[in-house]
Amino acid sequence: MVVSIDLARSTTAAALKKIGWDDEDAAAQAAIMTSSEICGNSQGLVKMYDPSLMAPAPGVSKPVVERETDTSAVINGNLTPGMVVAMRAADLAVKKVKDGNQAICIVSSYNSSTSSGQMGYYVERMAQSGVIGIGVTNSPELVAAASGSKPVFGTNPIAVAMPQSAGPPFTFDMATSAMALYGVLTAKAMGTPLPVGVAYDSDGKPTTDAAKANPHDGGALATFGGHKGAGLSLCVELLAGALSGGAVLGQVESKKVAKNLGHTFIAIDPNKMTDNFDSKVSSILAAVKASGPGIRIPGEQSAKTAAERTAKGEMPIPAKVWEMILKTAEKGL
Amino acid sequence: MVVSIDLARSTTAAALKKIGWDDEDAAAQAAIMTSSEICGNSQGLVKMYDPSLMAPAPGVSKPVVERETDTSAVINGNLTPGMVVAMRAADLAVKKVKDGNQAICIVSSYNSSTSSGQMGYYVERMAQSGVIGIGVTNSPELVAAASGSKPVFGTNPIAVAMPQSAGPPFTFDMATSAMALYGVLTAKAMGTPLPVGVAYDSDGKPTTDAAKANPHDGGALATFGGHKGAGLSLCVELLAGALSGGAVLGQVESKKVAKNLGHTFIAIDPNKMTDNFDSKVSSILAAVKASGPGIRIPGEQSAKTAAERTAKGEMPIPAKVWEMILKTAEKGL
Repeated sequence: MVVSIDLARSTTAAALKKIGWDDEDAAAQAAIMTSSEICGNSQGLVKMYDPSLMAPAPGVSKPVVERETDTSAVINGNLTPGMVVAMRAADLAVKKVKDGNQAICIVSSYNSSTSSGQMGYYVERMAQSGVIGIGVTNSPELVAAASGSKPVFGTNPIAVAMPQSAGPPFTFDMATSAMALYGVLTAKAMGTPLPVGVAYDSDGKPTTDAAKANPHDGGALATFGGHKGAGLSLCVELLAGALSGGAVLGQVESKKVAKNLGHTFIAIDPNKMTDNFDSKVSSILAAVKASGPGIRIPGEQSAKTAAERTAKGEMPIPAKVWEMILKTAEKGL
Repeated sequence: MVVSIDLARSTTAAALKKIGWDDEDAAAQAAIMTSSEICGNSQGLVKMYDPSLMAPAPGVSKPVVERETDTSAVINGNLTPGMVVAMRAADLAVKKVKDGNQAICIVSSYNSSTSSGQMGYYVERMAQSGVIGIGVTNSPELVAAASGSKPVFGTNPIAVAMPQSAGPPFTFDMATSAMALYGVLTAKAMGTPLPVGVAYDSDGKPTTDAAKANPHDGGALATFGGHKGAGLSLCVELLAGALSGGAVLGQVESKKVAKNLGHTFIAIDPNKMTDNFDSKVSSILAAVKASGPGIRIPGEQSAKTAAERTAKGEMPIPAKVWEMILKTAEKGL
């Protein structure tokens, strides 16, 4: 169904308050999920379909900066959801670059308890402040490093955004898995086969059967792009998981049980490096776009979708999701 | 044929001096190419097979730091080869982190005139100094963003290395192209077909004919991993090309003609972020390695090859390459 964007955001915030979040954290999470929904991204308001998963974890408290230098910080997420702590970390990286007049800063966070949502959201927000944003995050064991192997990686996304004075930032956001978990769950629900090469069954053999591929049923997702994708996923595991102080494979029973996931954000001031970075980026994007028919620049489609929906002030939301948000806003869990 | 490693390095340095390099630049390039050869990497001494390509460019002078802050620098390569300027940039990033007691630093270079060789070399060298090294570089138009498109990207590699007190650093080094140019040239020379999906002909159609795929004959390489690989390649183009001040697609006739390529290196002190980073990395690598049969950790094979060859003090070099190095050391071009 079609819902006003403002209403979607405010009702989602009300639902989050009803299940235990304070004004600040409810507003932040509602803004992030609504923004993803506006873009048509799969990490949007569907997260509210099972609001119990969005409720505060036992022992949760506010994120705290634990280590800090002029160019770095580490935030203990104190079991806050990935979305809240990712935004704090990304914003702090930008603040350190801008307030400190630095060329580059790094901020990691650990001990966040749930999915960070759409990583592109945070780096795009960084780029809207005029800095280059790079972000990575790890997540529980879903993705196997190769055929015949147990899942070790999360979908371990990499996101990069660059400021653009004319129009929205250039934003690239990809999972290092061959498919999003959401895609597997949808295929399972619809009874449709998965593409070849995106998943393994519980024996580690390639499968197109979504019911066998679900990590919760013993299956695993594949990395994209073969061993290169696996190598990138491993780098994300090291930079987001190990460097942040999060749960470390081999040192915990599982990342899933430890619920201690990490993010790392790097902010770079392009003006410290070169002149006219903005127009250089535009020129490269235009040249790549013009290099052949049908080339899509990353983020182009979602920016277009977002612009159309924002202009109208409304967007489609799956009826079951919207009903659950309304119900939660009224009655809680 | 099998040649002593020391002899290979010193004779290559002598050949480079004979064609016009000073002691310092000859030694640096010889060390880098020999190191790649020791690892079994395709970016090694084969570069000396046509020594005219390794000769100093007209107008070349020493690299100069042009912009600098406590946490950043930009080096004008002044047409020095990619290998020389990449090493300067990577080393300067490490020096800035260590001497300045910084958490993170960024050093870019532009105006280098030739291939940087094996990007893994520089980041591994950074990790040997105890910092995390991340490096990207762009190169002339060889790789198309999609089927049906003109080449716009270089092989645009991404390299990441992390310090490991027990043994060599973890080093990941990948081209964002589906294949190295070297692989296409070898297949063309041997008359063997290319794998499916790695190259396009001059009409932008997928081809397995190496003779049609050669970019010098109007063909192009594909990116690895479909649109995700293309997105990563674009990010490398922006971070290494645009951010460094190098030649920008759409602002020059071509990067190939402009001969103004860029690198970007980021150095991170892991001790500013977390405790025991070294053992966390080891634990993750061991867990991934143990997650299934036959899993190779990136860099594992080349580290093994390098260790074996270093222990013996000798390594195989293609006879034609070695003969050319000997001839050049004696007679020059």
